[in-house]
Amino acid sequence: MLIIAEKINIMSKTIGPAMRERNAKPIQDLALAEVAGGSRCLDLNLGPATKDGPAMMEWLVKTVQEAVDDSIQLCLDTKNLEAMEAGLKVVTKHKPMINSTNADEDVLDKYMPMAATFDADIIALAMTSAGIPRDCNERLVNAATIMGKAMEHGVGLERIYLDPLVLPIGVAQMDAMEVVETIRQFQMLNDPPMKSVVGLSNIYNGTPKDLHTRFGYTFMTMLAAAGLTAAIADSLDKELMAVVKTVEVLKNEMLYAASYLDDILGAKAEA
Amino acid sequence: MLIIAEKINIMSKTIGPAMRERNAKPIQDLALAEVAGGSRCLDLNLGPATKDGPAMMEWLVKTVQEAVDDSIQLCLDTKNLEAMEAGLKVVTKHKPMINSTNADEDVLDKYMPMAATFDADIIALAMTSAGIPRDCNERLVNAATIMGKAMEHGVGLERIYLDPLVLPIGVAQMDAMEVVETIRQFQMLNDPPMKSVVGLSNIYNGTPKDLHTRFGYTFMTMLAAAGLTAAIADSLDKELMAVVKTVEVLKNEMLYAASYLDDILGAKAEA
Repeated sequence: MLIIAEKINIMSKTIGPAMRERNAKPIQDLALAEVAGGSRCLDLNLGPATKDGPAMMEWLVKTVQEAVDDSIQLCLDTKNLEAMEAGLKVVTKHKPMINSTNADEDVLDKYMPMAATFDADIIALAMTSAGIPRDCNERLVNAATIMGKAMEHGVGLERIYLDPLVLPIGVAQMDAMEVVETIRQFQMLNDPPMKSVVGLSNIYNGTPKDLHTRFGYTFMTMLAAAGLTAAIADSLDKELMAVVKTVEVLKNEMLYAASYLDDILGAKAEA
Repeated sequence: MLIIAEKINIMSKTIGPAMRERNAKPIQDLALAEVAGGSRCLDLNLGPATKDGPAMMEWLVKTVQEAVDDSIQLCLDTKNLEAMEAGLKVVTKHKPMINSTNADEDVLDKYMPMAATFDADIIALAMTSAGIPRDCNERLVNAATIMGKAMEHGVGLERIYLDPLVLPIGVAQMDAMEVVETIRQFQMLNDPPMKSVVGLSNIYNGTPKDLHTRFGYTFMTMLAAAGLTAAIADSLDKELMAVVKTVEVLKNEMLYAASYLDDILGAKAEA
């Protein structure tokens, strides 16, 4: 499971001002902490990034890639197309990821050429601007549009992370299992299987704070068991990382040893 | 999810002596606590129950059913056929469950008539005395034998809880996902779907104690998502019961409300 660390975000009370003031230290420290927590890909979230977008993304990419190992992927997250391009231009050895396109044909015609040009992975939401997908089938139809446009623009299907769009449990309770089934079905759209990604926090948005980790851990387990490839989530949450690793052990993707969580939780004294 | 409470067990340091000394109080207290924890079915585990088996099971059934509400199911758990029959004979208003038969034809020819006579549910292990099932397919073949014998002896298929046999993660790591897949496949053997049950603790037997709940909660989530009907587990473990309920909410089997865990964990002060 690829955990795309979510904390470098302009909405953050500490990181937002650091971005605006071009204060590298708190951002680089957070990036290193996210990597230490077990993330191999860092989301750099500028949100809409209206005025200062391109300059800010350029600075942010340079700032983070200066701090972390070349093997760490950078996930550029903005709705501003110019900011996205400005960021992609300055990515050097790090593998970039575009976050994100939706399944509108005209949007895909902008983002897929960008993914091809910059040799980037790309997160593609299986929804159109026409509205929230109703069920698994509608998501699969949107995935087919995405895959068609990827092929048209010369983007390898292995570069695509299909995002089913997770809806909050309090808003669309009947949808959670549709998402789990969608993750299962996405894999069958190609061989090797299509990759998938979710924004995990969506499931508990709007619930009381003490329920966040409950829904997060449980839904993550269900999605990982169904074959989810990646999740935008908090790699600083040791419990979440332990849950992910436990699923990997149960799926026989990682060898079981009594010490398998020691690197996350620290070694325990023998009883 | 039916949680079959596991703690009334002759192996227990407090309950074992109480059974032998015919000391009702600790057993009745535990039974009431298990029900309060959220269990609707109580396992009464005598193990092999060699010499004193029939008398002990008779006493145990009477003792527990005297204490708990008529709607609570009693799950008679012993390898001693005479003890099983002695217990079933004294069950009055409570719905009995037989725990368990395997898939050997001669064993089924003993247990299925008993289930028919006493109008009991029955747990049937999808394995034979020939050995541990290798994979999902072998379990399905054994399930077919069980279902055939049930029909032969006039036991409704809705009375059967198929048990795939969970193996310890440290012994057969590649088997855990076979069990999850088996739970999925069991349901397709009939319409309405066949019921299933696991002994949850099997997955973490042999692992260090601090890993027990991790594997238990995570595997429970995976099995429940796959459609597991029942689990022999610890209904006094509030966290486990909260995990089960969270999966039920995510599966839209129980309505989400911010307070959905208050009856298990107690109401929280508003933030």
